[in-house]
Amino acid sequence: MAWSPRRSAGRRLQLPLLCLLLQGATAILFAVFVRYNSETDAALWHWGNHSNADNEFYFRYPSFQDVHAMIFVGFGFLMAFLQRYGFGSVGFTFLLAAFALQWSTLIQGFFHSFRGGYILVGVESMINADFCAGAVLISFGAILGKTGPVQLLLMALLEVVLFGLNEFVLLSLLEVKDAGGSMTIHTFGAYFGLILSRVLYRPQLEKSKHRQSSIYHSDLFAMIGTVFLWIFWPSFNSAPTALGDGQHRTALNTYYSLTASTLSTFALSALVGGDGRLDMVHVQNAALAGGVVVGTSAEMMLTPFGALAAGFLAGAISTLGYKFFTPILESKLKVQDTCGVHNLHGMPGALGALLGVLVAGLATHEAYGDGLESVFPLIAEGQRSATSQAMHQLFGLFVTLTFASVGGGLGGLLLRLPILDSPPDSQCYEDQIYWEVPGEHEHLAQGSEETETQA
Amino acid sequence: MAWSPRRSAGRRLQLPLLCLLLQGATAILFAVFVRYNSETDAALWHWGNHSNADNEFYFRYPSFQDVHAMIFVGFGFLMAFLQRYGFGSVGFTFLLAAFALQWSTLIQGFFHSFRGGYILVGVESMINADFCAGAVLISFGAILGKTGPVQLLLMALLEVVLFGLNEFVLLSLLEVKDAGGSMTIHTFGAYFGLILSRVLYRPQLEKSKHRQSSIYHSDLFAMIGTVFLWIFWPSFNSAPTALGDGQHRTALNTYYSLTASTLSTFALSALVGGDGRLDMVHVQNAALAGGVVVGTSAEMMLTPFGALAAGFLAGAISTLGYKFFTPILESKLKVQDTCGVHNLHGMPGALGALLGVLVAGLATHEAYGDGLESVFPLIAEGQRSATSQAMHQLFGLFVTLTFASVGGGLGGLLLRLPILDSPPDSQCYEDQIYWEVPGEHEHLAQGSEETETQA
Amino acid sequence: MAWSPRRSAGRRLQLPLLCLLLQGATAILFAVFVRYNSETDAALWHWGNHSNADNEFYFRYPSFQDVHAMIFVGFGFLMAFLQRYGFGSVGFTFLLAAFALQWSTLIQGFFHSFRGGYILVGVESMINADFCAGAVLISFGAILGKTGPVQLLLMALLEVVLFGLNEFVLLSLLEVKDAGGSMTIHTFGAYFGLILSRVLYRPQLEKSKHRQSSIYHSDLFAMIGTVFLWIFWPSFNSAPTALGDGQHRTALNTYYSLTASTLSTFALSALVGGDGRLDMVHVQNAALAGGVVVGTSAEMMLTPFGALAAGFLAGAISTLGYKFFTPILESKLKVQDTCGVHNLHGMPGALGALLGVLVAGLATHEAYGDGLESVFPLIAEGQRSATSQAMHQLFGLFVTLTFASVGGGLGGLLLRLPILDSPPDSQCYEDQIYWEVPGEHEHLAQGSEETETQA
Repeated sequence: MAWSPRRSAGRRLQLPLLCLLLQGATAILFAVFVRYNSETDAALWHWGNHSNADNEFYFRYPSFQDVHAMIFVGFGFLMAFLQRYGFGSVGFTFLLAAFALQWSTLIQGFFHSFRGGYILVGVESMINADFCAGAVLISFGAILGKTGPVQLLLMALLEVVLFGLNEFVLLSLLEVKDAGGSMTIHTFGAYFGLILSRVLYRPQLEKSKHRQSSIYHSDLFAMIGTVFLWIFWPSFNSAPTALGDGQHRTALNTYYSLTASTLSTFALSALVGGDGRLDMVHVQNAALAGGVVVGTSAEMMLTPFGALAAGFLAGAISTLGYKFFTPILESKLKVQDTCGVHNLHGMPGALGALLGVLVAGLATHEAYGDGLESVFPLIAEGQRSATSQAMHQLFGLFVTLTFASVGGGLGGLLLRLPILDSPPDSQCYEDQIYWEVPGEHEHLAQGSEETETQA
Repeated sequence: MAWSPRRSAGRRLQLPLLCLLLQGATAILFAVFVRYNSETDAALWHWGNHSNADNEFYFRYPSFQDVHAMIFVGFGFLMAFLQRYGFGSVGFTFLLAAFALQWSTLIQGFFHSFRGGYILVGVESMINADFCAGAVLISFGAILGKTGPVQLLLMALLEVVLFGLNEFVLLSLLEVKDAGGSMTIHTFGAYFGLILSRVLYRPQLEKSKHRQSSIYHSDLFAMIGTVFLWIFWPSFNSAPTALGDGQHRTALNTYYSLTASTLSTFALSALVGGDGRLDMVHVQNAALAGGVVVGTSAEMMLTPFGALAAGFLAGAISTLGYKFFTPILESKLKVQDTCGVHNLHGMPGALGALLGVLVAGLATHEAYGDGLESVFPLIAEGQRSATSQAMHQLFGLFVTLTFASVGGGLGGLLLRLPILDSPPDSQCYEDQIYWEVPGEHEHLAQGSEETETQA
Repeated sequence: MAWSPRRSAGRRLQLPLLCLLLQGATAILFAVFVRYNSETDAALWHWGNHSNADNEFYFRYPSFQDVHAMIFVGFGFLMAFLQRYGFGSVGFTFLLAAFALQWSTLIQGFFHSFRGGYILVGVESMINADFCAGAVLISFGAILGKTGPVQLLLMALLEVVLFGLNEFVLLSLLEVKDAGGSMTIHTFGAYFGLILSRVLYRPQLEKSKHRQSSIYHSDLFAMIGTVFLWIFWPSFNSAPTALGDGQHRTALNTYYSLTASTLSTFALSALVGGDGRLDMVHVQNAALAGGVVVGTSAEMMLTPFGALAAGFLAGAISTLGYKFFTPILESKLKVQDTCGVHNLHGMPGALGALLGVLVAGLATHEAYGDGLESVFPLIAEGQRSATSQAMHQLFGLFVTLTFASVGGGLGGLLLRLPILDSPPDSQCYEDQIYWEVPGEHEHLAQGSEETETQA
């Protein structure tokens, strides 16, 4: 097996102690603040004399489960494309998201469902917490392989707070629409991660370059992630929208948009590829841009054609980004973006925000009828014009970019603390530094049977 | 890396240009014809003063998501059993299905939901489009590894039209029942693909024989596909059936049928295997035949015992087909059937159609009560006897076989156009011809670090 | 390829004949006893003049599908961590579960839904049958790689009966609550398997030790299983609970508990690992203990904090079990526990039962309001005090341990019948003895092209 440095006791204890500390803190805060809401509490629900069929659970839980699969299966395996970082990709996704779900239940709860001194929880808070975990995992994608689990947990600790704050400003103060999170999730997560990666810039990363590529099987594992993200994205965008036509239309628009981003990804990938060959990096990532780009507008009357056009554009931009912009990002701007989150979440997210500006600005009473109240309540009530809503949407994008940039910068400074355990330049994208790694092949595993400690 | 031929610029541009052309055409047709239906349109839904719980979304979307997983995860990974064609299996499934979803939305829309000059879309059109994509992927299975993506897209272009036409003749003109598509999906897709494969017969395919087998890990990837198809098949067959007892009974029957096809597959595989060993090809495929065989009859009063018996028979026939009939199909009938779709979809599909004839012929007012109206409206209204319905069902099978055969023949002629980019006999079942392929093992990837262009 | 012994004709025919015999027997019993219930039968459902939305299908089918995915994807792939037993892990899971679904439909049906001489089936019987299959697969985990498929089917034949009997005693006679099966599924399945493994103790198992570990890719396949189990566990525990707040609260509690067991698993794994490294065995298994430990109490008013605390404790105990107790179990107690089911299902299951005792004992009319009737009907009706319910819960644990131990002992004696085909000590954890196994690598497969019989 390859060389691996021994770490000092102080460094080795960082992860266990931080996990215990964070878990202890959230547990105490849960004990003090978190309570069942009226749909999950036995006494409150039965006091209300509801029909069971009215419980929010039946309207949103199937969508929640799809979102949950995207976060843990989708993100985890998509990042497993690296040949020697499969354990870290799937495993740290697991760790980060598990912590983020607890922590964002608290943060988002304080902002959105704090009633009578308590945070009230149910399926909507589960969906929201998963969404926040999604943003953290997007940022993780930018620094994948170059950071240790302690750094990642600290990033999540900070990012969840800023995510909640940004989301509160957008949804509650600006009353911007962003159900599927083109702004709050994708743009925020991407630029937070990119700025953070800039601060952590490693000039000597070349030393690990031979590990920063896929092998045949790791690309297939990554496709598991891609396909689960792709199929469940309609549920992601529609999970928190208005019931009835709202969820239905959002799912339909997302479905169409993804088919178009897939076609444009294949077209552009073959067009720019050597000898017309397709690139798995494009297919694994850019084909998903159709889900990102309609995150804001899919609940609106985007029209099926609008969904196709948006998806097509997003897939094309994303593919071209991987081909031409990622190298510049690293060489000129010193941003090392492991998974290309700028191409999958950054540009398509910002484009999705702008699409939301456009579609909101075109909203009319005629097009939405009595459904206007569900999608744009302030327009329906006459408090805002469609143009004013569009301007608020646009302002939401700038707020998001600001929070993400400042947050990413702070995060980068935090993660650069020299005390934190971080992989050396020559050991990036390498599982062995944080994981017990068995041999790659059968005969290797046989040869090392004395040293293996598998249960 | 292995030898790979350079292609001329004309050939290299075929895929990008065809993708762009097809996407442009469907986008224009969407702009002109496709509109939200009354369940997805904000104005129309709210105009109707419905309860949100009545929206079709809540009755069919969870089933749709399972179907969606089957199409993209199930079919894609099931075909990844080939050692050197994982990218093509998963990737071309992705491309073909994404295009088929758009194109069949238009074709099926013209036949089934064309109202006032517009195609109206919602969750039912999403399910129907996924079903059509399933038929295209079945045909893909017959020619897997022997065709390029341009040929595959052209096949889909033709097949979706004929699928829509055949489905219209069966469901709307003959008023045949076929919820899970034993005829319209499985029989049609299989024989379309088999006839097409016959027309594309390659006498020199032996040159690629060493790649037409699995390796240990590719068989496990294929099992991902198998298991997702198996678990979600109850949702597939029940997704479009009548609400209430209809969906419930269809799911239950399919569930039982699949358990029986699994047991008969293991029994027969061990019985005919060398030294009593089980064959992964059988387990990956024949165990699924129980889902195919009840595609027509699962919504009927098949009885749980009937489901077990049907599944048992289908699993047995399918396993024996892989063992004994596939070699004959190639040597005598010159049909090279890469995935054995004749065994999984062809024979079990036709058998399922005949089972539908039988169960329809046995329908009585006593057995169905007032539910007869949902399953066999023409019998309930006295316009047809059960025997007449059975005869119509049988005629539906012949119509399907005719459309599939003629369509497959036409498709084969189309795909033989010499201008189309197609792999040479010695490069079939090989990803490298259409994909940038990284090394198989870590050290290879390290060795090629200078030439790798991974982002 | 490695040496593999030829088996006698008598041994080779055991599996096919047993499969056919079992399938024939269940089919006959289905024909005689199994009928559609009033929600799946066309005549009965329509006779009742119900609204389709009231059909149980819409309340439980999405949860059922998640459970179904856990059984076949989750268990199957989780056990695929062994380097040379992927086919056996996924394949025998498939076979065992398919048989158990049929057989437990009959056994559970006799105990729970036998009306007028018939077993009535619908989505609830589907969920219950999947639960029973889960217990069988837990036992399979203890003896994975050391038993042949004939032995496994006989184990299932016996275990399903005892599972049904134990479940009947607990749920119907003692009126104990155990929705997610901390006792009936996890404790029962684990101790049944462990005692069985004790009876089958192989002193010479050292001869296969080199195969009893993972390789890099097999650990990633196992993570597919882990992640699907993890994300769908909220559906598992909530699938059979009371509608409305019951399902909602159960899912929420399970979700929180799992996040905490994930954090404690990472903390403890790094703490006890060499040089602070994480161990995939812990992450794959112990992170799931949070789902097991709230199997009894998640439907109760556990509180979100209670869920976190329980999950934290379960993850910690499970991780420490893998590290320190599994070796002792083998060396001192002669229990060879391949997957460590004692750590994932045994201890967390028993702990979950005790947690149920505690939470039931704390039940008050104030905390549950009118919802008390759904969770603890006997307390609501004044027939039992909370303390009495708690004592019944505790007694349920002892009953379960007794049934599991006696059953596992009987099972072990049955499986030791010398006539049964069983792998020799030197061929454990090896697919080749029961499966046609292709080469591990491309060039091997090429080299063996003459002998391959792939279809």
